[in-house]
Order: sequence, then structure tokens, then C-alpha cells
Amino acid sequence: MNSLNQKMNDIHHEFEETVKRIQSHNGVDGVIVVNNNGDLITSTLDMRSSVSYGELMSTLAENAIGFVRNLDPSNELTVLRMGSKRREVLVAPGKFRLNIFF
Amino acid sequence: MNSLNQKMNDIHHEFEETVKRIQSHNGVDGVIVVNNNGDLITSTLDMRSSVSYGELMSTLAENAIGFVRNLDPSNELTVLRMGSKRREVLVAPGKFRLNIFF
Repeated sequence: MNSLNQKMNDIHHEFEETVKRIQSHNGVDGVIVVNNNGDLITSTLDMRSSVSYGELMSTLAENAIGFVRNLDPSNELTVLRMGSKRREVLVAPGKFRLNIFF
Repeated sequence: MNSLNQKMNDIHHEFEETVKRIQSHNGVDGVIVVNNNGDLITSTLDMRSSVSYGELMSTLAENAIGFVRNLDPSNELTVLRMGSKRREVLVAPGKFRLNIFF
């Protein structure tokens, strides 16, 4: 195996471990990772929920990212939390977008 | 003064006291209150910022309220927090919507 392949495997492994680590936290119902186009990368929820949550969260995150930049173009959204009566949703934007459901 | 007037004065006083109390918290830069149509009710920021923040927050809050209801029609958004590199914005929906800027 050449070193590029090895490196990609390492990154993939680290990525999977991170998702597992977050999912294992007490109270976490699910983890969804989407790319910046809103495409689903990985999810611990069922396919139907993952796709519909992923799309909704992407729209919302785009709005929030725009809102922060609108107020100050040099600023950047780091986290979006939505608390509701029954559930909490946390979105962490980055290269990939991480949606965590409590 | 009749009792209705008295009651309205009491509510108005309580409302003003609440805004003052939140504003006085350490790290709070401003408090904006809008109604559910996005109209500005009161603000501790300057008029220009208040109007533009108020409008942006209203759009975002509407989206978040819709998102929560979409996932579960019997659920309800209680709080929306946006963390960014330089600022944190908290939206508390209710009869009036409270936007708090840290």
C-alpha cells in the first residue's frame, strides 16, 4: 500500500472513530455528517430520517452562516444549537457539517 | 386609573424590567425584542443594527421553528443559539421574540 492510500485510510479511520465517540455520549440519539452541498456522508440514524434531517439542517445552517457573515464578513459560525421541548440539535460547521441529535 | 390600564402598566413595567435585567448581565452586548411579524418592539442597540439584526433573526427563527415542527408537529422550539468566532446570539421565541447578543 502506498503512503497516499495509507494516509487516506488513516483519515477515514479517524473520521469513523470520531462519529462513534460522539454517538457513544450519553443522551446522543444520532449523528449525521453532510458535506457542504448537503449530501449525506455518514449517519447513525435510519436512511429516511438522515436524508430529511440532513436537508433541513443544511438549509438552516446555510442561513445561519449567512446571518453571521452579514453582520460581520470576517466572522464565522462555529456552532448552531436548537433547543426544543423534546430534543436538542447541534450543528457544527466545518469541512463537513456535523449534526448531533440529543 | 381603571384596573385594565393599571394591569397594562404593570405588564409594560415588568417587560422593561426584564429587558434591563438581561442587558445588565455580564457580556451581554444588546437585547432586541421583536413580535412574531418581525416588527421591532424594543432594543438596547442603535436603530440601524436593531432593524437589520431583527429582520435577519426573524427569518432564521422562522426557519428553526419550522424545522422543529417538521420533525415532530407536537414539538416546539425553545431556544436557538448561534456561536461564532466573535459573538454569540441567542433567540428565545415566545409571544415576543427575544434576541440576545453576547
